[in-house]
Amino acid sequence: MALKTAEQYYESLKDLHPTAYILGEKVENVHEHPLIKHMVAAVAKTYELGNDPEGKKYLVAESDLLGEEVSRFVKFYTSPDDLLAKVRMLKFLSQRIGGCFMRCTGMDAINSIGIEAYDCDQKYGTNYWERLQNFVKYVQTNDLVVFSGVTDVKGDRSLRPSEQKDPDMYLHVVDKNNDGIVVRGAKIHQTGSLCAHWGLIVPTREMREADKDYAVCFALPADAESLIHIYGRGTLEARPLQGYDLGNVEFGKFAPMIIFKDVFVPWERVFLCGEYEFAGPMVRNFGNYHRHSHGGCKSGVGDVLVGAAAAAADYNGLPRVSHINNKLAEMLKTTEAIYGCSIAASIESTPTPSGIYNVDPVLSNTSKLYEGKELAEVIRMMIEIAGGMVADVPSDKDFENPETGPLLRKYLKGAENVSTENRVRLFRLIEKLAFESRDIVSNIHGAGSPETHKMTLLRSADIESKKKLAKNLAGIKEE
Amino acid sequence: MALKTAEQYYESLKDLHPTAYILGEKVENVHEHPLIKHMVAAVAKTYELGNDPEGKKYLVAESDLLGEEVSRFVKFYTSPDDLLAKVRMLKFLSQRIGGCFMRCTGMDAINSIGIEAYDCDQKYGTNYWERLQNFVKYVQTNDLVVFSGVTDVKGDRSLRPSEQKDPDMYLHVVDKNNDGIVVRGAKIHQTGSLCAHWGLIVPTREMREADKDYAVCFALPADAESLIHIYGRGTLEARPLQGYDLGNVEFGKFAPMIIFKDVFVPWERVFLCGEYEFAGPMVRNFGNYHRHSHGGCKSGVGDVLVGAAAAAADYNGLPRVSHINNKLAEMLKTTEAIYGCSIAASIESTPTPSGIYNVDPVLSNTSKLYEGKELAEVIRMMIEIAGGMVADVPSDKDFENPETGPLLRKYLKGAENVSTENRVRLFRLIEKLAFESRDIVSNIHGAGSPETHKMTLLRSADIESKKKLAKNLAGIKEE
Amino acid sequence: MALKTAEQYYESLKDLHPTAYILGEKVENVHEHPLIKHMVAAVAKTYELGNDPEGKKYLVAESDLLGEEVSRFVKFYTSPDDLLAKVRMLKFLSQRIGGCFMRCTGMDAINSIGIEAYDCDQKYGTNYWERLQNFVKYVQTNDLVVFSGVTDVKGDRSLRPSEQKDPDMYLHVVDKNNDGIVVRGAKIHQTGSLCAHWGLIVPTREMREADKDYAVCFALPADAESLIHIYGRGTLEARPLQGYDLGNVEFGKFAPMIIFKDVFVPWERVFLCGEYEFAGPMVRNFGNYHRHSHGGCKSGVGDVLVGAAAAAADYNGLPRVSHINNKLAEMLKTTEAIYGCSIAASIESTPTPSGIYNVDPVLSNTSKLYEGKELAEVIRMMIEIAGGMVADVPSDKDFENPETGPLLRKYLKGAENVSTENRVRLFRLIEKLAFESRDIVSNIHGAGSPETHKMTLLRSADIESKKKLAKNLAGIKEE
Amino acid sequence: MALKTAEQYYESLKDLHPTAYILGEKVENVHEHPLIKHMVAAVAKTYELGNDPEGKKYLVAESDLLGEEVSRFVKFYTSPDDLLAKVRMLKFLSQRIGGCFMRCTGMDAINSIGIEAYDCDQKYGTNYWERLQNFVKYVQTNDLVVFSGVTDVKGDRSLRPSEQKDPDMYLHVVDKNNDGIVVRGAKIHQTGSLCAHWGLIVPTREMREADKDYAVCFALPADAESLIHIYGRGTLEARPLQGYDLGNVEFGKFAPMIIFKDVFVPWERVFLCGEYEFAGPMVRNFGNYHRHSHGGCKSGVGDVLVGAAAAAADYNGLPRVSHINNKLAEMLKTTEAIYGCSIAASIESTPTPSGIYNVDPVLSNTSKLYEGKELAEVIRMMIEIAGGMVADVPSDKDFENPETGPLLRKYLKGAENVSTENRVRLFRLIEKLAFESRDIVSNIHGAGSPETHKMTLLRSADIESKKKLAKNLAGIKEE
Repeated sequence: MALKTAEQYYESLKDLHPTAYILGEKVENVHEHPLIKHMVAAVAKTYELGNDPEGKKYLVAESDLLGEEVSRFVKFYTSPDDLLAKVRMLKFLSQRIGGCFMRCTGMDAINSIGIEAYDCDQKYGTNYWERLQNFVKYVQTNDLVVFSGVTDVKGDRSLRPSEQKDPDMYLHVVDKNNDGIVVRGAKIHQTGSLCAHWGLIVPTREMREADKDYAVCFALPADAESLIHIYGRGTLEARPLQGYDLGNVEFGKFAPMIIFKDVFVPWERVFLCGEYEFAGPMVRNFGNYHRHSHGGCKSGVGDVLVGAAAAAADYNGLPRVSHINNKLAEMLKTTEAIYGCSIAASIESTPTPSGIYNVDPVLSNTSKLYEGKELAEVIRMMIEIAGGMVADVPSDKDFENPETGPLLRKYLKGAENVSTENRVRLFRLIEKLAFESRDIVSNIHGAGSPETHKMTLLRSADIESKKKLAKNLAGIKEE
Repeated sequence: MALKTAEQYYESLKDLHPTAYILGEKVENVHEHPLIKHMVAAVAKTYELGNDPEGKKYLVAESDLLGEEVSRFVKFYTSPDDLLAKVRMLKFLSQRIGGCFMRCTGMDAINSIGIEAYDCDQKYGTNYWERLQNFVKYVQTNDLVVFSGVTDVKGDRSLRPSEQKDPDMYLHVVDKNNDGIVVRGAKIHQTGSLCAHWGLIVPTREMREADKDYAVCFALPADAESLIHIYGRGTLEARPLQGYDLGNVEFGKFAPMIIFKDVFVPWERVFLCGEYEFAGPMVRNFGNYHRHSHGGCKSGVGDVLVGAAAAAADYNGLPRVSHINNKLAEMLKTTEAIYGCSIAASIESTPTPSGIYNVDPVLSNTSKLYEGKELAEVIRMMIEIAGGMVADVPSDKDFENPETGPLLRKYLKGAENVSTENRVRLFRLIEKLAFESRDIVSNIHGAGSPETHKMTLLRSADIESKKKLAKNLAGIKEE
Repeated sequence: MALKTAEQYYESLKDLHPTAYILGEKVENVHEHPLIKHMVAAVAKTYELGNDPEGKKYLVAESDLLGEEVSRFVKFYTSPDDLLAKVRMLKFLSQRIGGCFMRCTGMDAINSIGIEAYDCDQKYGTNYWERLQNFVKYVQTNDLVVFSGVTDVKGDRSLRPSEQKDPDMYLHVVDKNNDGIVVRGAKIHQTGSLCAHWGLIVPTREMREADKDYAVCFALPADAESLIHIYGRGTLEARPLQGYDLGNVEFGKFAPMIIFKDVFVPWERVFLCGEYEFAGPMVRNFGNYHRHSHGGCKSGVGDVLVGAAAAAADYNGLPRVSHINNKLAEMLKTTEAIYGCSIAASIESTPTPSGIYNVDPVLSNTSKLYEGKELAEVIRMMIEIAGGMVADVPSDKDFENPETGPLLRKYLKGAENVSTENRVRLFRLIEKLAFESRDIVSNIHGAGSPETHKMTLLRSADIESKKKLAKNLAGIKEE
Repeated sequence: MALKTAEQYYESLKDLHPTAYILGEKVENVHEHPLIKHMVAAVAKTYELGNDPEGKKYLVAESDLLGEEVSRFVKFYTSPDDLLAKVRMLKFLSQRIGGCFMRCTGMDAINSIGIEAYDCDQKYGTNYWERLQNFVKYVQTNDLVVFSGVTDVKGDRSLRPSEQKDPDMYLHVVDKNNDGIVVRGAKIHQTGSLCAHWGLIVPTREMREADKDYAVCFALPADAESLIHIYGRGTLEARPLQGYDLGNVEFGKFAPMIIFKDVFVPWERVFLCGEYEFAGPMVRNFGNYHRHSHGGCKSGVGDVLVGAAAAAADYNGLPRVSHINNKLAEMLKTTEAIYGCSIAASIESTPTPSGIYNVDPVLSNTSKLYEGKELAEVIRMMIEIAGGMVADVPSDKDFENPETGPLLRKYLKGAENVSTENRVRLFRLIEKLAFESRDIVSNIHGAGSPETHKMTLLRSADIESKKKLAKNLAGIKEE
């Protein structure tokens, strides 16, 4: 089957009927809800760009499984070039969407699971790898969107899954039979769960024997029975709810919570069930891949941040000021480090027995650490360059009001050759780039928290060999 | 007359009828509007605390003019102790209000104007100083709220006031007669203009002879004829508009734009008019005072940021984790530097001919620079400690819905001894502390932009004497 | 007796005969050794400035004990003003000495011990407080220099004093009789031990009952029998050893290790002996006081760093470049934060039962944290402004050589009006400011390490009350 | 001819007789001078490792010119893989040498010149490209070390070459005849000029028509007639001068100043002479290549810094402390960003008409900016982890002295299983890593200063296209 167009994607959503709640109400045509439709539009844009001559270069790949063109979003990473291509695709897209397009969690999950499914089969004679390949063929053939469910609600953070007072604080198997399994629990921050056709559910942490029932991995349709999506609020909602004033006029991000009220999953869609020693590696793979993905998409957003700041300087009448140039250079320094380390993590990737390539974890975690901390300063510098108007521009309705409109157009004018309207549009974009909570928090906590990144970095960096280098230079000989 | 109670303050607002537009509509009882009433509540809280035994120590001072107790918010700074008391009062209040209470711009403007009014009278035989004292006696006697109008809209930033294509881009005198003056222009970011009784209008920059008509300073009632307030949008508005979900449940900040459509001001309220050489010093005084004020209020907010992060760690079940303690210490380091430099700027203040004390500009600008840059990192660390739930907690309505409420209460539970409801409340507070645009942008651009702070710091720091210290040590003798 | 002159100080050293080793050799007239004499000169400069009309204001105080003028370096802090005066004195001196003058450890130790001596007497009926007062009277009367011995060598850092395999890794009492005690151990980083007349030895950490013998505090002459000083190497030694090329041409710092080979101390000079619960508070007092001292002296050095950088820009022909001004402002920001927080720690000091005032620990530790981390960046920026010549200026001897001298004078010339010689002098100063290891490491580890500062900050900051502020604002009511 | 061994390199130096001055004296066997021999040893180590089975993989390449194995240090970069290989070689070497090995300036100069020589020939019909290829064949065949002379002394930095009062402040052609040219001037910071066989001299900046005579590029032997090398002092010289105590016991760095007292260069070694428009591109190529080189060598040093810090923690008895791990992770973050961006700059390199590949300037400058600023913090953290002993360890001679030796061995002992001697060795290494001025200043000013890096970054980053991305997202349509 051919790659979908944006229209075909919209069409395909009509057959999906997820159980969804938004601001306290059960919503039927959820994909058209004012708080969701901008998110759907972001995904649709990826389909549109996949059919565009330039975008095609980034978005379309040859499938090893089918031997035909498929979306790169559902492909195994079978070479360093696949990983390089991923970073570049994500940068290309986020430059044009200005934020999350909610398709890379699925792509990263497919690969993370693949490596361990293969290894588990080798060890236990299971056939997870074949099942996964079949699933991937299915989504390739139908050009589907897959989200990935990783983060459990976790309850008391100091306790392991099996130690929690309420056993459901981590997703687990509550029943099994010949046909499949039944799972219960909840996953939060489910980026794009309401724009996707399918979800891939991955354990959120390493598991020990006592946590065996929590070591479960599977795929399910986004509208599976007894699966509930609850919208989580972000900032800036008054704007889409009232139909105007949104900075990035077309696209947005959201991340519902999903609750599994005893959901049934047939065996053919189960890729891990009880083999607890593979849970940790699986989620670590995911973490490393997804930090690598962020290196692409967030450096693309970085280009938008830099561009928005530079344009604001122009619009304010300050196009070539020394301190602004200095800040732009500092902004670039961070965003290019994020990008560069992801590119390098691709080049220094290594093959696994499954044939899937794993990114260099030192470099992918380094990239993410810059996103987690320094990207906030990039955003702060954008605000600093843009000026105080980021805080409190009057609303579109004030511009439309005949009494206030002309006054605002007069008094909010900046540089001579720029219309007040365009200047306000730019401030609205900057406001969205700086204050959309789901984007900003994702910079910090997406793909794990900075402490996790540091821990992974440290564990992967082979400190012992570095000690030896130092001791050799100091002339220290140890037995 | 006695100091007002919160009730008396509310009562006093009933006589005020400012012309105000919010989201495109002209609003009558503006003080009760859902987007304004939380701001009014913040001001009312200052009256309440002024009548509280502990708060009284901070908020009530002896007037040199009246010889009786008045609000410290409308007092001249006639000693280093007055400046110390100001910083401590602002810290005390912001610890309890969690943000802006919109009364210190007026206090700082009174003092900034006072110094120059006195000097101008000495030079030109004007009687601005007497007029200002009369105005201050009036607001002391009636215990009024005064906002301060400093920031003009500025048009093309590369041009001076008299060079702008549209002469109204900076507020200026368009007519004069025996009774007073008529002014036209617009001021933006007018913190608290709709909670105040009066406004004090100050030039926004130094002026040269050609800019003479722009060198104007005066007081006017918040509901003066032909004065229009237009509300500037912030983030998070969907919450108060829908009546729920606000993080800081009681208080908020706003900063309308005000437009002077040829407003008349009688001479007795005019404190500068054409003596352009005093415009620069006046606004520089204001800047230094107001950066000093931020040292108090933002370090108080800093305590809330630290407290919120530490409480979130407890609620997540991670009360004593090493990396969290490290972050709390880093957060304190910044907020205490902000506070400490303001305290020091008070101690190292110097008297002016008017008897008003001026803060040390090096230290007050240093304090503000930490707020402008490093406070953003404090907020980022708060988010990092609190975790991803800051991004996307479901709404109150979802908790009220009988189908989703029990599920949310079950799955969003953290540490054993904490109710899910309290945990969610805390995340809502953190969301507000991190994402309320008017607060965050004020950290950066309030009281001038960081580049202004650096320039002032550099000019005030006597680099020449420091060069001499270095040369002496290097054994360099110069003719 | 009158305050000493610099000459009298030099005279007084002639009676001191400490056992000292430098680079492997036992040295007799140690105060004249090329590696020590610049340090002695720094101390002598403090005496000189104490007799100078301007310096007197900073350095001379009225003694509460003697009722006459004494050096502020040996005075109890009996008011916030004493603490303010200390900070200002230290800043004044370091601006003129460009580094350590090795007298504030003694001053801080006197006060740290005083508070606990008094409290211990109250609890146990000892007479430490009287003994200490007698000692202070003696050093006041004779205007002596006192160094302070705090840091033990510590052995394995993961073990307490009484747990070490070698019991001597922390200084301890090995014998006692009617006349006094005998102590054994070693203290490192003993700033100024060879320029001082006396030493005050303080426990380096809190002690438990098992560590009782290590809870010992006393005074002893710098040339006490069986006390050995071993010089610790710094960088840049080739210069003074060869008699030329030193950047700061007059002054230097050093910090020997001192070894107690069973040293006898008479009871009248013992201020703690076994009352282990006072060891912790004593060293914590010292830490807080000494971090407060650094706030003065390092901000004075900061002025030299800023001045040297600004002068180098002039000398390079770049007097008013935007990016250099930006860096100078950043440098000032840090040094003023260091200063401002120490000033504030003085104002917010609190009296102890002894009458001695304790600094605010939150603010004094905040000051030190900026020194510990951000001052390194100030130094880096100085190098960045000065340029590459900081790395590798040819030696004085090359300037004296008739073949190379004229070439160097020709080719190392910068701005027109500056002699090459002065330019080189300035680079030498900058090199010393940037690379003298004992100064730079003291920025980080002096008065405890940054981790200690953070821990103290956190413990002193009352996090619980801040949590309450946050919960109040969030509307959280807890039982 | 075969690749040289270390012995052959030493042998080859015997035929070189450069005119050299060190600390004021003319030196004959300069390669054996105590201040130079450790530098020679660093270069010799590169020859040794080129003959080692593992090292060979990094150091030996196939020459396109000769079709045989040559040193990668004298090869053209004819593919992205060559650039990748360069970064990895430099990292490999600096991990084993702990600092500069003084061979990459020549390698980068060869390529920088090549690109412009080719283009110049195209434009003017000159034959610079052929001459350069001949020179490269010669150094490949003889496996020589080439240093590169870029940085002029520059005089008054605010003036262009032709505007200087003394015309010699930039190297220039003072005479020309049929055989060649005569040049006068001086270059500073000439890394490795006394360990090299040849030098490649490159203009230090862009030139305009008036600066034509300064647009000159050529090769000359290190011992050319009338070429004078003057040693520039570093820190820590007392150690090698006295024969002991050096931290990194084998290797060092130096950077003399070289003075051209009217040096003759034959035409066959001249690669630019008057074609001023190629001077700027040539030095910009050099800058971008050399920043890329730093990405390799400084990340290798970074591994040593991390290893030294981690080993010091072990030796102090603190092997697994949380705050130390956190610092190690931060140290890695910076050093990996430096490395990663250089790797990425290789991958994103582009071919020039000459066939030589140019690195991506955005990424190579980003890498260098992290070295210029953040590497200083890595070093500070190493000191913080290692502790105060970095400041002032007694000398080797004190350990040898029979009176002090046993005391030092006793009291400077750390963790049980580590000899005091090894612990001291490690502190000496750390001291050298932190305080060797020529290394530290090179981090900042090597390959240009940070402001140059920022300027290059900004110019290369295509801000206009980023503005367009932002405007598209904001819905702004401009004519």
